[in-house]
Formats: sequence, structure tokens, C-alpha cells
Amino acid sequence: MTGTLFILSAPSGAGKTSLAERLLAVDSGVVRSVSHTTRTPRPGEVDGRDYHFVSAEQFERMAAAGEFLEHATVHGNRYGTSQSWVADQLTEGRDVMLVIDVQGAAQVRRLMPDTVGIFVLPPSLAALQERLTRRGDAPELIAGRVDAARGEIAHVAEFDYVIINDNLDCAAQDMTSIVRCQRLKLSHQLAQHQDLINRFR
Amino acid sequence: MTGTLFILSAPSGAGKTSLAERLLAVDSGVVRSVSHTTRTPRPGEVDGRDYHFVSAEQFERMAAAGEFLEHATVHGNRYGTSQSWVADQLTEGRDVMLVIDVQGAAQVRRLMPDTVGIFVLPPSLAALQERLTRRGDAPELIAGRVDAARGEIAHVAEFDYVIINDNLDCAAQDMTSIVRCQRLKLSHQLAQHQDLINRFR
Repeated sequence: MTGTLFILSAPSGAGKTSLAERLLAVDSGVVRSVSHTTRTPRPGEVDGRDYHFVSAEQFERMAAAGEFLEHATVHGNRYGTSQSWVADQLTEGRDVMLVIDVQGAAQVRRLMPDTVGIFVLPPSLAALQERLTRRGDAPELIAGRVDAARGEIAHVAEFDYVIINDNLDCAAQDMTSIVRCQRLKLSHQLAQHQDLINRFR
Repeated sequence: MTGTLFILSAPSGAGKTSLAERLLAVDSGVVRSVSHTTRTPRPGEVDGRDYHFVSAEQFERMAAAGEFLEHATVHGNRYGTSQSWVADQLTEGRDVMLVIDVQGAAQVRRLMPDTVGIFVLPPSLAALQERLTRRGDAPELIAGRVDAARGEIAHVAEFDYVIINDNLDCAAQDMTSIVRCQRLKLSHQLAQHQDLINRFR
């Protein structure tokens, strides 16, 4: 039995981190992939839980060895997802959630076509600007982030599902519904309950 | 904007009626199709709410005029779903739930390929027998219903989703997740939120 690989993408400030946390809090069948990164830890971040913090040299060594399912440079820092870790989780029957940008999502899809992609949209441009301001992004960075958001949203059609994050409770329920729903798909259930179905034959 | 047509099928005694009722109680976006039937009303059943009770002559006139999306004979009684009623609901943006047998499901799928099919399985053969007994089916009918269940379950692979109804609360949550999830699909969301997406371009 194998799990499903979910990709969660969204422009900065659309709330993807909060949504992923909500899902993980209520659904023990999903694990979040912990990325490798060269960026310095923010206060409160724990190595191995939030990220695997590695040196630039170590990151490049792993990338050269083909150990990443995807890797990208965001705001000057390198981020990557270990392919062997994801494959192990799926084989053990866990669903895996990758929270990555649209470029990373495209890389993963090429290597693993059976992913389920979820894109999160802010309810409006004004709401996005307000969230970036409220979380303390420097005013001079906000215009750039809004431009980047436009670039990300142009890729919405590459995803399977779209969540509008207007209300966090509602958007979190959307997330859990998408994950639950994949487990109920025919192919998954036939594999999972073959014994039960055979007993009726 | 158009709704989705859901088909809910299950062997007699698997709990499809309770599941449909649970869904309709919590999700006002779904309406249940009210079938036409030639069978006599059971105590408490209301014409127009539970079924449209019609004479055999009226039923055959409608069938001959092509007014049914599907129709079938079950235990000697005729049942049918009005095609124009379903089409009107979908056009008005409502999701429609049809609770029908596997033969009816196959007829509907031929006319409307975009349906989402959900099949409900009992958790075991013993559980199915116990439910049929508990709801008061005559002992001499139960063996026949279990055989019929086997025949229905042989069609499970024609459906998109499979729910194992072991615990009603859990199965009802599965149902609501499937319905909610369809509304989050890319094509549906692009149609629904075109204005929002254009505002980011």
C-alpha cells in the first residue's frame, strides 16, 4: 500500500504554512516533508523539524548527487526536498505534503506524475497586501512580493485543486477534504480492501 | 456555473439512505433527486418528497417519451429519474445526488459522462446480514438480498469512489469530503473565480 504525494503551493502571504499546520494537526496520516535549506534559522526554528539547515557546500553536494526531488533558490537561499525520504514515507503508506513554490511543483510533477497539486489563492489583492504587512514584511519588500504573487498565480492551471483562503477554518476544511477524498478513490480502496471485496465474490 | 451530478449506489442494507440523509442535512448545496415510482407509499412516505408516486400507465408514458435519465424495475416496482429536473438543478448550480442501483448508474453514465460515482460497501458479509435482519426484512428475503448484494458489489469498479460504511459518522464524513472536494477541482474553481484570478494578471 502506498500513500499520496500532495503538493501545496501559493504566493507568499496566501496562508499555505497555516493551512499545512492545520491539516497536520487533525490528520495523523499525513507527514510534512522537511526541506533542506541553506538559509539561517529564524528565532524558534528547530533543525530537523522546521528545516534541515545545511551549508551551501553540503547542499550543492546533495544536488550534484541527484538527491533532491526538487530544489530552488528563493530570495537568495537554496531549498530542496530529499527524494529518498519522500519515497520511503509513501511506501510505508503515509501521505506526504510538500509545501513548495510553483517551479518546485513542476520539477516534482516531472519525476512523480501521480502527485495531487493544491494551489491556495488569497481572496483578493488587498487581502494579500494586508497579510504581508501584518506579518511584518518590510514595506519595500511588499511590492516585490505582490509581483511575485502575480507570477505564481499565473501557474494556477498546473494544479488539481484550488482553495480560496478567505476564512482559515473553511480553507483548512477544504484541505482536509481533499486529502480524505484521495484515500476514497477506487484504485486506492481496491488495493486497501481487496480481502473484503473478495469475500463478496 | 453548473453543479455536479453524484450517483450513490450500494447493496440493499449497506446504509446508502442514511448516508444520503446525513449529507443533505449538513450540505445545503446538494439536492436529492426525487424518483418517480409505481410502488405504493410506505407509512410516513410523502408524495413529492420521498417519491413521485405514479400509476404504471403514467410511468410507461413518461418512459416512452424519453423523460427518464434512468429507469429500472426493482422487486417488481418501476423507478425512474426525471432528466429535465436533474438538468435544471445542475444549471442553477446545485449539486444533485441520485441514490440508484448499479444498472441505473450505468444508464446515467452513458447519458451524462461527467457524473461522480460513489459506491458504499458494508464492512463485512455478517454486518450486511445483521442490518437486513435489524431493519425487519423477512428472513426468507434476506438470502436473496445477500445474493443481490454480491451482484451489485461486482460492479464496484465502475465507480469513482468507494466508502466502507463501518461507522456511520465516519462514512458520512467521507461523503461530505467527496462532495466538497469536487467543488475545489481546478476546472470548477476557474469557472467560479475567474474575476479573482484575472485581478492578479
